[in-house]
Amino acid sequence: MNPDIIKERQNATFDVEKLTYILDGGLEKTKRRREIESMVFSDPDFKEEDPNFLSRSERYDQAVRKSAQMILKLREYGIADPEEIYCYKTMVNGNHHEAMGLHFVMFLPTLYSQCDPQQSKKWLPLAESFQAMGTYAQTEMGHGTHLRGLETTATYDPATQEFVLNSPTISSIKWWPGGLGKTSNHAIVLAQLYTQGNCHGLHAFIVPIRDMSTHVPLPGVVVGDIGPKFGFNEVDNGFLKLENVRIPRENMLMKYAKVEPDGTYVKPPSAKLTYGTMVFIRSLIVGESARALSKSCTIAIRYSSVRHQSEIRPGEPEPQILDYQTQQYKLFPLLATAYAFSFVGQYMKETYHRISGDINDGDFSELPELHALSAGLKAFTTWTTNSGIEVCRMSCGGHGYSRSSALPDIYVEFTPTCTYEGENTVMMLQTARYLVKSYRQAKAGQQLSGIVSYLNEAKQHRVQPQPVAARPTVVDINDLASLVEVYKQRAAILVELAAKSIQQEIQNRKSQEDAWNNSAIDLVRASDAHCHYVVVKLFTDKLGEIGDIAIHSVLSTLALLYALHGITTNSGDFLQAGLLNVPQVHQVSVRIKELLSQLRPNAVALVDAFDHHDKKLNSVLGRYDGNVYEHMFEWARRSPLNATEVHESFHKYLKPLRSKL
Amino acid sequence: MNPDIIKERQNATFDVEKLTYILDGGLEKTKRRREIESMVFSDPDFKEEDPNFLSRSERYDQAVRKSAQMILKLREYGIADPEEIYCYKTMVNGNHHEAMGLHFVMFLPTLYSQCDPQQSKKWLPLAESFQAMGTYAQTEMGHGTHLRGLETTATYDPATQEFVLNSPTISSIKWWPGGLGKTSNHAIVLAQLYTQGNCHGLHAFIVPIRDMSTHVPLPGVVVGDIGPKFGFNEVDNGFLKLENVRIPRENMLMKYAKVEPDGTYVKPPSAKLTYGTMVFIRSLIVGESARALSKSCTIAIRYSSVRHQSEIRPGEPEPQILDYQTQQYKLFPLLATAYAFSFVGQYMKETYHRISGDINDGDFSELPELHALSAGLKAFTTWTTNSGIEVCRMSCGGHGYSRSSALPDIYVEFTPTCTYEGENTVMMLQTARYLVKSYRQAKAGQQLSGIVSYLNEAKQHRVQPQPVAARPTVVDINDLASLVEVYKQRAAILVELAAKSIQQEIQNRKSQEDAWNNSAIDLVRASDAHCHYVVVKLFTDKLGEIGDIAIHSVLSTLALLYALHGITTNSGDFLQAGLLNVPQVHQVSVRIKELLSQLRPNAVALVDAFDHHDKKLNSVLGRYDGNVYEHMFEWARRSPLNATEVHESFHKYLKPLRSKL
Repeated sequence: MNPDIIKERQNATFDVEKLTYILDGGLEKTKRRREIESMVFSDPDFKEEDPNFLSRSERYDQAVRKSAQMILKLREYGIADPEEIYCYKTMVNGNHHEAMGLHFVMFLPTLYSQCDPQQSKKWLPLAESFQAMGTYAQTEMGHGTHLRGLETTATYDPATQEFVLNSPTISSIKWWPGGLGKTSNHAIVLAQLYTQGNCHGLHAFIVPIRDMSTHVPLPGVVVGDIGPKFGFNEVDNGFLKLENVRIPRENMLMKYAKVEPDGTYVKPPSAKLTYGTMVFIRSLIVGESARALSKSCTIAIRYSSVRHQSEIRPGEPEPQILDYQTQQYKLFPLLATAYAFSFVGQYMKETYHRISGDINDGDFSELPELHALSAGLKAFTTWTTNSGIEVCRMSCGGHGYSRSSALPDIYVEFTPTCTYEGENTVMMLQTARYLVKSYRQAKAGQQLSGIVSYLNEAKQHRVQPQPVAARPTVVDINDLASLVEVYKQRAAILVELAAKSIQQEIQNRKSQEDAWNNSAIDLVRASDAHCHYVVVKLFTDKLGEIGDIAIHSVLSTLALLYALHGITTNSGDFLQAGLLNVPQVHQVSVRIKELLSQLRPNAVALVDAFDHHDKKLNSVLGRYDGNVYEHMFEWARRSPLNATEVHESFHKYLKPLRSKL
Repeated sequence: MNPDIIKERQNATFDVEKLTYILDGGLEKTKRRREIESMVFSDPDFKEEDPNFLSRSERYDQAVRKSAQMILKLREYGIADPEEIYCYKTMVNGNHHEAMGLHFVMFLPTLYSQCDPQQSKKWLPLAESFQAMGTYAQTEMGHGTHLRGLETTATYDPATQEFVLNSPTISSIKWWPGGLGKTSNHAIVLAQLYTQGNCHGLHAFIVPIRDMSTHVPLPGVVVGDIGPKFGFNEVDNGFLKLENVRIPRENMLMKYAKVEPDGTYVKPPSAKLTYGTMVFIRSLIVGESARALSKSCTIAIRYSSVRHQSEIRPGEPEPQILDYQTQQYKLFPLLATAYAFSFVGQYMKETYHRISGDINDGDFSELPELHALSAGLKAFTTWTTNSGIEVCRMSCGGHGYSRSSALPDIYVEFTPTCTYEGENTVMMLQTARYLVKSYRQAKAGQQLSGIVSYLNEAKQHRVQPQPVAARPTVVDINDLASLVEVYKQRAAILVELAAKSIQQEIQNRKSQEDAWNNSAIDLVRASDAHCHYVVVKLFTDKLGEIGDIAIHSVLSTLALLYALHGITTNSGDFLQAGLLNVPQVHQVSVRIKELLSQLRPNAVALVDAFDHHDKKLNSVLGRYDGNVYEHMFEWARRSPLNATEVHESFHKYLKPLRSKL
């Protein structure tokens, strides 16, 4: 164990283990998580080479092997609870993704929810036994977030009682679905349904794409891998071009909408039925943000505690780089953010389960709010995490750029969350739509409830930004409740500003739609402020649940840092709205420096509490024992370019070059 | 040609070709650049597969081949001017780096500048004929920016008249030098010189590391590749562990310092002699920032003009995504930044050449200012560009994540500039040191000249931030000269705040050094404001040189957008300092929206003017002809995972899995 990091741990003022329980949701959960982790770590089948040393094809190969092994082992161990499966898989996959993920996350769930009884009888046994391996083919080369734009067609032919599927244009080729390129032999294809000469919009069809026994693509099916990406090397994101592919009528998923044998279309009873899944996945992504950021902070903070560089005081030994104020200013606000997002992730999970229960009981009333919240928070947390990972990486200097740090891997695997499950700007605008609607309802005298209830107070605010002096200052920058209030008022003012911008545009004879687009910057800003308020509020609320005094104290410091750092980076908003005055903003800067010093002794303990096992981090810099350099050397020597002392290029190019000069 | 992009070009209000001349520095330069480009593009030796389809070893192999070919071709074509060589190589390397770069950029120049006449006679012919292929081994596993911390030792043994080189610890292993792992047979090694029992600090030694004919590592030399990185796959960044490696006394570079045969150490006449190279490379990096950002903007803006998605007005066809205000808000400020940095890059190059002339004439007076400016601007421009590339990538939605977009490549190849040639935070603090020193000189009554002369006015400012009303407002947000003034005052105030913070700490009985560290956040902020001012000023100055009315007009709009966007994102600073009032900050937001609409018709033309050839961009999304989708499909089909229809993993794992269930 590196002596520096031992000393760091001795300096901690709280019980790390107890904080881990809080993060996991209780002692029992931590225990079970560690049990599952150790199943993976002690399993020789999962002792493999660093994927960074492998070619793309080898990485895919290794991932398929692990996917197949996991299926067997989960059955063997009898792990069936979704959370435990998730935990097991996360350990196996490390910083990477699963080759067959879409089969479990989209193919099976869609069959479960959209097959009619007869279809269930046929398809579930096939899918559960992996005779049918599937994916979910929605996005097309030319069409992403906007589903109505999809071009793939499924035209019913009553003569043969078949659907004929086609990709009528280049831009209609299915593009991006995970597992589509090489792994799957079936795809659930979203296509525009045509029957009896009419288009009935998007419907889902089970399309066999490869022969189930030879795995060769079926006639009319052009399928393959979309090529190398920034990350996701383990996953064969694919393309699918359909050329008059015929499937039986029974392959349309018919639990809701139907096409009768004669081609008569039967409408689904309600359009809102898939709403829930999207909300669920976006809620989960908030937790993914917390995990990615807490991993990154773990690596950067542990490394900063063992890395010595430069000098603060001449003549003294090189200090730990964690002693530099600039390093603390980079990392501690992100550490605070990782905690904030962890608690927000917990909240989203709980809320989702609560509201799911309501929905099952027929109560949809909270769904719109959850929808708006999950969209905005998905965008807010992924954007913050995305840039935060890179700050962590660069705070490790040159070594952060090495794949041995794991930070490049964490980044490239995480960054697509800003785009998938709804592009972030679009998500922010969805939340804004809810906020503006709520604002207008409040203006019209309706009493709002839930998280937007602060908009009830809208009438009290003046529209125009106003000089500082006009608003009495009662904010206590050391009091979290007071800061929650300030964030709330900022959100209210920015929602109002956005709404007024739309109104202004309409007064300038713009259409409703153009007015919306011309106010989009303000709308995104309002959503961002709303989400920021929610995060500060939920972090503060969480403190109320924590009984342990030492942990309460250090988490309060983190929460305060989170809130004040947000004020400093958005000080213009708070000044413009007259919520804080100039001396206060200056005090905030001074206070932040004090909080950094205060957190310094607990920094390593705070990342330890996330309890990311070394084998999960897979980072030479983030090792628990702090023995960075020996392991970096050992890792480098295993690199494939060192398999031979002399690379063949010497004989091929360098030696011959001399004779040509 | 895609009809959308044709229309975009028809809408331009200025002559693209003329703007290209301005960016290149004149018609003749553009002509010559294109000549050189076409030599590469028409050369069958450089028609190769996308490196993204190759393994690491194949990529290195291909890069070595191209390095060797370039040497021969440059001689054949008689290209000898450094700028033209740079241009030629940039075309060959595309978005990637050269395997043998360090031989040219560091090994040869160091020999030229630090060999004594006898050494020149021996080493230059060897190096110029590539018998000796070399690199520059400075950084160690445990030591980066802080040179004095290096641990490698070179101990003189008078008995044999040799130096004995050692890596005494794990952390002293040389780490990161490009070309060290596999390519080089020599390294210039920076080591602590010991002779006659005394350490004389860092000196440079020529160390043979591989046999010149067999390329096998020499005894006592442990050398290899440091393993995969985020990018730089073409480059064999290496490690070097020296175990009692003996080199003749004559292998110490002796132009300045010397060791006599008996071991007597002879000091160099001046310590400042390598100062210039560092400044030069940092100045060049400013230009690299401009290039990386202009490439990224070219890709994102062209793609945004042919991509259609969602709807602004219901019932109408899907609009070009460039019509969304949020998309414009992401991309146009970056476009303005790319122009700003291009002009700053030109300025830095000119200034460097001017001051180099002065230095050759013995006038060192401007060197400290240039040193401070190049450090800060290197950090300022690389940080901005680094996050800007990612904004461009994510603005392309999912397709930005594909390697076919080239944006992942541009990012991973660019991001190390934030770390190398001086870690950015350290660079910012170096600039801050100069600013605070200048501020103190001005306070003490000295009259400053040059770019920091604004600190002469420091006495007029009050120290404490003050309420808005206290400062009379004369700022015209539509007038660039007025905005330059505002940026200048912001810089002056933030330099003063940082200086006062140090003073405050000292009054609290902190040592000078601790006071510095405890003010580091403020110091970085001051440097950032200083650099921001310089960029706004240089962009504005450049407008004065532009005669063409149409170009002057569009560049003025860009400059205004650059300045106002900087105010909006740092509005807290301007409000806090009382430089702008609340209604003005609101007006700035409104004005920015107008500028976005104003720039919209010229967006594609403005990126066309950068004149990045398709083969240099290597981006499916950024193609000049806008025909994105067909080429994306064609690119994907060439991907190695599509070499076979059925991947072997099906037979190895998926098929057997079924029988086990």
